[in-house]
Amino acid sequence: MLKEEKVFKDPVHNYVHVQDRTIWDLINTKEFQRLRRIRQLGTSYLTFHGAEHSRFSHSLGVYEITRRIISQFERNGYEDWPQEQRLVALCAALLHDVGHGPFSHSIEEAFGMFHEDWTCRIILEDSEIHQVLQRIDPALPEQVAAVIRKTYAYPIVVNLVSGPLDADRMDYLLRDAYFTGVNYGTFDIDRILRLVRPYKDRIVVKESGMHAVEHYLLSRYEMYWQVYFHPVTRSSEMVLRHIFKRAKELYLQGYSFRYFLEPLDALFEGTLTTTQYVQLDEAFVQTAFMQWINEPDELLADLCQRFIERKLYKYIEVDELNAEWLCREWHAAGLNPDYDIMFDSPSDNPYDVYRSGDEPTQQHILLWDGHDQVMELSKKSDIVRSISGIRRGNHYIYFPMDKLQAVEHRLTDEVKRMFLQRKN
Amino acid sequence: MLKEEKVFKDPVHNYVHVQDRTIWDLINTKEFQRLRRIRQLGTSYLTFHGAEHSRFSHSLGVYEITRRIISQFERNGYEDWPQEQRLVALCAALLHDVGHGPFSHSIEEAFGMFHEDWTCRIILEDSEIHQVLQRIDPALPEQVAAVIRKTYAYPIVVNLVSGPLDADRMDYLLRDAYFTGVNYGTFDIDRILRLVRPYKDRIVVKESGMHAVEHYLLSRYEMYWQVYFHPVTRSSEMVLRHIFKRAKELYLQGYSFRYFLEPLDALFEGTLTTTQYVQLDEAFVQTAFMQWINEPDELLADLCQRFIERKLYKYIEVDELNAEWLCREWHAAGLNPDYDIMFDSPSDNPYDVYRSGDEPTQQHILLWDGHDQVMELSKKSDIVRSISGIRRGNHYIYFPMDKLQAVEHRLTDEVKRMFLQRKN
Amino acid sequence: MLKEEKVFKDPVHNYVHVQDRTIWDLINTKEFQRLRRIRQLGTSYLTFHGAEHSRFSHSLGVYEITRRIISQFERNGYEDWPQEQRLVALCAALLHDVGHGPFSHSIEEAFGMFHEDWTCRIILEDSEIHQVLQRIDPALPEQVAAVIRKTYAYPIVVNLVSGPLDADRMDYLLRDAYFTGVNYGTFDIDRILRLVRPYKDRIVVKESGMHAVEHYLLSRYEMYWQVYFHPVTRSSEMVLRHIFKRAKELYLQGYSFRYFLEPLDALFEGTLTTTQYVQLDEAFVQTAFMQWINEPDELLADLCQRFIERKLYKYIEVDELNAEWLCREWHAAGLNPDYDIMFDSPSDNPYDVYRSGDEPTQQHILLWDGHDQVMELSKKSDIVRSISGIRRGNHYIYFPMDKLQAVEHRLTDEVKRMFLQRKN
Amino acid sequence: MLKEEKVFKDPVHNYVHVQDRTIWDLINTKEFQRLRRIRQLGTSYLTFHGAEHSRFSHSLGVYEITRRIISQFERNGYEDWPQEQRLVALCAALLHDVGHGPFSHSIEEAFGMFHEDWTCRIILEDSEIHQVLQRIDPALPEQVAAVIRKTYAYPIVVNLVSGPLDADRMDYLLRDAYFTGVNYGTFDIDRILRLVRPYKDRIVVKESGMHAVEHYLLSRYEMYWQVYFHPVTRSSEMVLRHIFKRAKELYLQGYSFRYFLEPLDALFEGTLTTTQYVQLDEAFVQTAFMQWINEPDELLADLCQRFIERKLYKYIEVDELNAEWLCREWHAAGLNPDYDIMFDSPSDNPYDVYRSGDEPTQQHILLWDGHDQVMELSKKSDIVRSISGIRRGNHYIYFPMDKLQAVEHRLTDEVKRMFLQRKN
Repeated sequence: MLKEEKVFKDPVHNYVHVQDRTIWDLINTKEFQRLRRIRQLGTSYLTFHGAEHSRFSHSLGVYEITRRIISQFERNGYEDWPQEQRLVALCAALLHDVGHGPFSHSIEEAFGMFHEDWTCRIILEDSEIHQVLQRIDPALPEQVAAVIRKTYAYPIVVNLVSGPLDADRMDYLLRDAYFTGVNYGTFDIDRILRLVRPYKDRIVVKESGMHAVEHYLLSRYEMYWQVYFHPVTRSSEMVLRHIFKRAKELYLQGYSFRYFLEPLDALFEGTLTTTQYVQLDEAFVQTAFMQWINEPDELLADLCQRFIERKLYKYIEVDELNAEWLCREWHAAGLNPDYDIMFDSPSDNPYDVYRSGDEPTQQHILLWDGHDQVMELSKKSDIVRSISGIRRGNHYIYFPMDKLQAVEHRLTDEVKRMFLQRKN
Repeated sequence: MLKEEKVFKDPVHNYVHVQDRTIWDLINTKEFQRLRRIRQLGTSYLTFHGAEHSRFSHSLGVYEITRRIISQFERNGYEDWPQEQRLVALCAALLHDVGHGPFSHSIEEAFGMFHEDWTCRIILEDSEIHQVLQRIDPALPEQVAAVIRKTYAYPIVVNLVSGPLDADRMDYLLRDAYFTGVNYGTFDIDRILRLVRPYKDRIVVKESGMHAVEHYLLSRYEMYWQVYFHPVTRSSEMVLRHIFKRAKELYLQGYSFRYFLEPLDALFEGTLTTTQYVQLDEAFVQTAFMQWINEPDELLADLCQRFIERKLYKYIEVDELNAEWLCREWHAAGLNPDYDIMFDSPSDNPYDVYRSGDEPTQQHILLWDGHDQVMELSKKSDIVRSISGIRRGNHYIYFPMDKLQAVEHRLTDEVKRMFLQRKN
Repeated sequence: MLKEEKVFKDPVHNYVHVQDRTIWDLINTKEFQRLRRIRQLGTSYLTFHGAEHSRFSHSLGVYEITRRIISQFERNGYEDWPQEQRLVALCAALLHDVGHGPFSHSIEEAFGMFHEDWTCRIILEDSEIHQVLQRIDPALPEQVAAVIRKTYAYPIVVNLVSGPLDADRMDYLLRDAYFTGVNYGTFDIDRILRLVRPYKDRIVVKESGMHAVEHYLLSRYEMYWQVYFHPVTRSSEMVLRHIFKRAKELYLQGYSFRYFLEPLDALFEGTLTTTQYVQLDEAFVQTAFMQWINEPDELLADLCQRFIERKLYKYIEVDELNAEWLCREWHAAGLNPDYDIMFDSPSDNPYDVYRSGDEPTQQHILLWDGHDQVMELSKKSDIVRSISGIRRGNHYIYFPMDKLQAVEHRLTDEVKRMFLQRKN
Repeated sequence: MLKEEKVFKDPVHNYVHVQDRTIWDLINTKEFQRLRRIRQLGTSYLTFHGAEHSRFSHSLGVYEITRRIISQFERNGYEDWPQEQRLVALCAALLHDVGHGPFSHSIEEAFGMFHEDWTCRIILEDSEIHQVLQRIDPALPEQVAAVIRKTYAYPIVVNLVSGPLDADRMDYLLRDAYFTGVNYGTFDIDRILRLVRPYKDRIVVKESGMHAVEHYLLSRYEMYWQVYFHPVTRSSEMVLRHIFKRAKELYLQGYSFRYFLEPLDALFEGTLTTTQYVQLDEAFVQTAFMQWINEPDELLADLCQRFIERKLYKYIEVDELNAEWLCREWHAAGLNPDYDIMFDSPSDNPYDVYRSGDEPTQQHILLWDGHDQVMELSKKSDIVRSISGIRRGNHYIYFPMDKLQAVEHRLTDEVKRMFLQRKN
């Protein structure tokens, strides 16, 4: 333990408290400091200009919520909580996002990577983080990684760090709401933290906390549709993916980049080491894009310019997608169907408002009656039951308005009516 | 005017409203979008992890406050406000920070640049901003630049955009308080905005707003000492300046950088064009520093690593500085007095809590009695009078603790006692 | 108009602005000032100790929201808004609650009164309010009363003051959330106020405001179940009603009260004049109750003591009520089934989360596409559609635990198990 | 201890936590519940309509802050804190205001009472509070009363409950700011609570908390002048005092009141028992005043009407008072100098922004260096030193404008110019 508690001033939790030297040392590793250069919400800052907050902030927040929950468990001496697992849980909470890359969702999709894998590699391979953990206990790195992988011997620790009511989600909802400035994401976290309990292998909530949990789920619902799936953000993500796709394509074709920087080659070839991986941050990626504005390859240059100067694709919402027909039309008009049109149906994306089922899984929230009964949330909550059946299917088509207007004379009337006579 | 008002969601002002097409077009220029990649508080995010907000956000906020003030003037039909100056004022408010470079204060000091100059150059020379302004009126670029330079023919416009109670300061106090999470910076801006009045060539405040103005000045005082002059932030700024100094030194010595990128050469030689200047952003600088960690020059590599991995210099506070003596000691111990020790006396820095004088200047706040009398604030406010005489002289010495510890055996007892037996 | 705008500092809207002399004069009438002595949430302060705010605050808030909406309509010059109706709408908004009595819901139920009727009587009969209105225009009192009665010739004014998205509801959700301290009631009122439009005879919302309206409806849902229907509040309301019932019973029996004050007799006999009515406030009622603690009638004295000293009835929640059986059991045990047990099924209470139907009524929210189409909200919003079918049926039984325990030996096992072995 | 912690939802501290059965039982006594009917800020609700919060809320808040401080001390195991004093301190914190009467400051001044005396009498004499305390330990009532009287054997307990940085002041600043809606009163209480330490017989603050303490003192300064000494509030307090004065005068003259209620006679004669005292609350007083509007004594009736209907005295601010001359003028004009004019110089009122001195007293704030040095705050803080010398001398004259206007023809020109040609 530290001789004296250290604190970080945090706009969401007011203060983040550090009492363990191990946590303090982990925060000061270069791999953790790198999270300052990875935004929590990727390209959302192009829609909500306040959303410039980093995964560093979020990771501290997740750690702090976990610390508060465990401290409540210890203060009350609940027997179902394995006290010796405190440090494993705190480390896993702090480090759970350490493997995120720059503009994580887009880069993962473009290169078939998974940030959980990188998180585990950073913890297990030779890194400052690994050294800090190992100094405490040679088994600790593997234990922490097991929590991330959800294979840890104590399911309750896994459930605490990544369950349906976990510290991760609670922090990001509050934090993203704070920094974007929307007021959908605020729920009564103090009440939830006071009413969660360890119960057998699970984190459950006392029945009297049901309304606070309902409010938390409604907040999530609103945040997903109003912030995370905002079409302007999706547009910028799609431009981003196209940049990665085009650059990789060119690299594999042997194109000679005027500006090229290690370890981009290892990224394109899929041979990144962890040392190389942690060199990738959003400053690196943005700098590459800014330079590529001057690349001779017009497609790459145009996409980079759009991203850097926020000249994004426009979008229309449609009832259903007829992708095949549109690609033909695009082709006929002389546009590039691979790059000049993109389709998006955000309901395809992971979206886990609680859905009730007969057999509660790890993803279900359980209410506890204070004695020996637990009940799955939707059995008790009218509003959760009623929203759990919602299936939204929004379909969007994104396109470069300027390029489309340039070939207006070649477009069919139907396409013109659909794309040029609407605006957003 | 836009057919329909546009809004930006803003955590500080809730919404930023845009009604003029010119403002909308200026926001969409690449020079203005670049401000997204310049942090409002430079390196403060290394002290307050929430302080990742950009000059883009701040510039929108300054514009919004200015818009609200002018709209209040227009609604009430005050004669001393020249209504036809609305657009000039709004453009100057929006663009006043457009010339800021990456980590502005440090880069300016290192290279002898002034962001006001760059703001004017960007407005006057060939830029997207220039084009937007000129399209409205060929005289507009020069008018806006004149407001920035404080030479505009209408002093009230200058006073509105950069007076002692201007939109700039009001926004940054509120915004920096919000994003750092400290609660010193909150004052009653709504009351101030309701009670400012145009009076002859000045913006004045109705007497009944005196308490709100006092609170605003106290907020400034607190923010300066607790956020802007925070020693950890100063430490990171000093590391930053040393990096710039060392890199320039090496460049002028003909050192061959392993990683070097245009337009760094123009920066080092002092020949930057505006086109080159707007390529410089914080992503660019951070990427350079991250690469330079691998430079053969150990000094540069070490400084860059410290900055990127937040392994900053430690500090001690002293009653007075004996710089000469310390540099000798440093030298004797084999340390580099040019890079391994830094001195800082933040009271030397511009710090303008209101000071009263016999002749009110443009920097004085005037209270208006609602009829024909104005009175300089400190004549009326006990608390402003009492704080205006404060002269704080804090002195700090910054140094790399690890390097000092490495030569501990060569240090005199006095130096050891002073630097090694204290902690912060 | 006032020579200079007046303001009230308000924690919810920051400032309430008064520009019209008529509004200023209405606020200063004794009938409006009386609202300071009527709590907005009746007995809720016994559950949420912060909920001590008055109907005076709320009425100012409703006025302010209405003023902002109308001001937005005027600024944008919408043709469907009848500009000359501004003052009628503002007066109706300000005065809509002026007829509320002390602990309004309970007193209305106990004596078969309706606050809307009293509002109209105060406006139309001889009162300071009537005089202020009449001075402007002899027709104004009748116009304002017609808005309250929903019979006014301009349905859009009625819809603004009491529609499904009216200033009344928006203010009370925000205000009650603020003063109770719960955070369910916060929605983005600024966005709604910016996006409401006059459309034919209705107030509608632009489509882009749909999410804000969803959030507003979810807030209402949460506030109803967590604040307005809170069982402790219901318990105190039921004690209150029993006091009124017992006192009236005694009065009609010719009981001689030790403490009795005009105009209680007129209240009990149903002959209150408006002059008498405005003498009734919560101070008056509480003072009577405090004195009645010393009445010889034990039942009245006991109920009053419970209310004043907050020794409320306990409650249990049951799946369904078997009132007849319980009253028999109570009687058999020597308890008084008329006063020692109370039943409550809050779903019987007015509860108007939006329900969609084929024909939009005045109570439906309409979304407007910006051109010529309006669509009823639930057609477009998945979440509103999904929650609109919720029918909650909670049943509670309230009883004096001490009295029940005193006759424990006479209770059947079933009653003991049900009432004495549970706790809340 | 309670089997399960109980909580109160609180807008200022989010939750108030009760773990001890004694505290729970104290809250449920009739003497403590009576505080719900005493406003925290007396007549301030007539100036700030949100300020309807009760001493009940405030007392819970003071208890909660004290609980948090003690819990921090216990968690860290500081030796200077006498752990067995926990319950005494908590009870004293909770009960410190229990002796406040209705509109406390005015009634105390009118009848020469002191709420501290009543607090002690309620604790020591036969009351429900006394019984709860005595059940725990027969010595407890006397111990708690000794803390209130500042004579307790453990000075650190006294210092915690009523020192210069005590739970009382911290709660009321935050609470009054919240309910009035002004934003002057917000300081970083979490930081202060984290950095207070027991040190010998005192509560001190770690040096690193200096800025938070400065901010707390500045908040106090602002709250005093902008809320507590607001002239409209002072005006209503003076009307109130005149009512008490006139009623007592009439009572002693043998006047026969049409409405008179026990225990008013005991109040007027100065023979109140505690049982009688706790019958006095603000509902009681307001009801009396409302009835007295119909008393034949015109002076009493007029004053009561002014108070109930908020038709207060107007005021002017003057540089210095010439009371004697004005009373003569009033008399000459046929006005009553005893009731138709009132003087107020709020600097006469207790106002204790920190003043530095050579010998730190119990009222001084001490900074602790973490080792063995304490230093009185103003020695270290420039801003505290600079504001501690402020002596504000505002002088106000209050008068009934309508009465003055009625005798306008009899006023001298000087009086007319002074009182009738200004407005507020």
